[in-house]
Amino acid sequence: MDTLDVELGTRSYPILIDAGLIGRPDVFRQHLPAHDVLVVSNTTVAPLYLPALTASLGPRRIVEVILPDGEAHKTLANAARVLDVLIANRFGRDCALIALGGGVVGDLTGFAAACYQRGVAFAQVPTTLLAQVDSAVGGKTAVNHPGGKNLIGAFHQPVLVLTATRTLATLPARELRAGLAEVIKYGLICDAALFGWLEAHLDELLAGAPAALAHVIRRSCEITMAAAMARECGLMTGDEAARVRRLLERAGLPTRIASVTPAAVLEHMSMDKKVLGGRLRLVLPRGIGDALLTADYPAAALTRTLGAHCG
Amino acid sequence: MDTLDVELGTRSYPILIDAGLIGRPDVFRQHLPAHDVLVVSNTTVAPLYLPALTASLGPRRIVEVILPDGEAHKTLANAARVLDVLIANRFGRDCALIALGGGVVGDLTGFAAACYQRGVAFAQVPTTLLAQVDSAVGGKTAVNHPGGKNLIGAFHQPVLVLTATRTLATLPARELRAGLAEVIKYGLICDAALFGWLEAHLDELLAGAPAALAHVIRRSCEITMAAAMARECGLMTGDEAARVRRLLERAGLPTRIASVTPAAVLEHMSMDKKVLGGRLRLVLPRGIGDALLTADYPAAALTRTLGAHCG
Repeated sequence: MDTLDVELGTRSYPILIDAGLIGRPDVFRQHLPAHDVLVVSNTTVAPLYLPALTASLGPRRIVEVILPDGEAHKTLANAARVLDVLIANRFGRDCALIALGGGVVGDLTGFAAACYQRGVAFAQVPTTLLAQVDSAVGGKTAVNHPGGKNLIGAFHQPVLVLTATRTLATLPARELRAGLAEVIKYGLICDAALFGWLEAHLDELLAGAPAALAHVIRRSCEITMAAAMARECGLMTGDEAARVRRLLERAGLPTRIASVTPAAVLEHMSMDKKVLGGRLRLVLPRGIGDALLTADYPAAALTRTLGAHCG
Repeated sequence: MDTLDVELGTRSYPILIDAGLIGRPDVFRQHLPAHDVLVVSNTTVAPLYLPALTASLGPRRIVEVILPDGEAHKTLANAARVLDVLIANRFGRDCALIALGGGVVGDLTGFAAACYQRGVAFAQVPTTLLAQVDSAVGGKTAVNHPGGKNLIGAFHQPVLVLTATRTLATLPARELRAGLAEVIKYGLICDAALFGWLEAHLDELLAGAPAALAHVIRRSCEITMAAAMARECGLMTGDEAARVRRLLERAGLPTRIASVTPAAVLEHMSMDKKVLGGRLRLVLPRGIGDALLTADYPAAALTRTLGAHCG
């Protein structure tokens, strides 16, 4: 078992990475002592992993909320439903929530935990690669609003992230690729060595090799923790841009968006949380492994780029 | 103008106390630089103070949400309404919310600010004594749930608390007494000098004397900040209990609850956030100016006390 300690003072927590963690009662006994536990999952994941999770939790009071699967259900109404169940069962401040699923379940459960009695403990058990490398770590919780994604949320750190890589065996190829896209982005933005490693080991990852997956998850979590992205402005060379495009194509990921117009993308971006003082800030790579968040770019360059890659 | 600095590192904020603060543009210019401002108030307070507040804010984009008056409206649905308005107006992360009203408006607005884009700035402009000495300070935000009060909430510090004591002139006597009850409780629990001061100056407070009100608000805010209540167990003497009873009666406050049964009170208390491990903890005074939070008391004493003071 690989353990990564996220050091945040009183809010520190461990990320545990291993193939079969869901079936390990000792892990839950050690890291999640709460007696009253609410497990939130969805209709796809629950039949696959909820019985093993429940068995590992041992003799506690366990209540389940099973949501429909999909981003459309990451709503304030469903977070309120989780809160209703907590209250109906008279769970106290010493209860814990467990999110068993992908980013939708994790973000929504974390937000409900943040709001219940001004904050109760919750554990992330991410079952998609994207959640394992991104949404389950970092303490960002949220639900969507018809006006934009993640507009309603809170920062609330989990007490434990339990990454059972075996769950990736049942993950659809499309969702595995979505996680790989995030990992490639990490390499591109702040870790040239990771990017090189991905170029060498992509086939193993696509085949679901446990050791390769564990490596890439661990390195991605470390990068999310580092978050050292504020550097001076710059641009990639043509060679670097070609390397990025090739790696994305090998991973089966799109390099343009055919289904939306540039205007629709701009409209959507205008409600992003990175808008400050009415100005949209962008994360721009300066080269492989180096990027920055900036509002200092030519507006025409954005229009041109969207025109070339959308619609 | 009296200024009290609440020191919380990067979340520090000032409490400003003076009669006519709502009409001071310089105060808002200095402490609340946001261009986009959402003011939340209610149908009772808005006609009295919203025009002066809006005038003091000067040339900014100001949006208003006016809620019905009363605790029944401190709901998740109304917090969601505030979030809807923020999103419909495309307010960014650099916006600010202002709560103009009592504890209902303050708690709900603070919770909406806590959840919008994972937390935006908000200022408290409390217009009731209870809000000025209690709910506007300390960073506790929440809405109610049919299953219990304040069960859905977050800790989110304001950037500014602006206490305009002149607003107390329009406060109904019943609500002034509700604030005095809280202040008497502070004296009882942790400040014997304040309790003695209240015994000497209660008539001035009931008559709305500005200097007396400012003193009691400042002292109460200091006590909320101190929160040094964990001391050893004990009981009050009969003389001390009689002093408490007399001061409550002089302030026009009840010393028993005729309208509810002991069983109903117990049922209600069982959903209080102070329940831990299924055991209800009580704040028990050890004497005037000294109390503790404990689950170590005879269950029969609680039943007996409720029987003597309820129904």
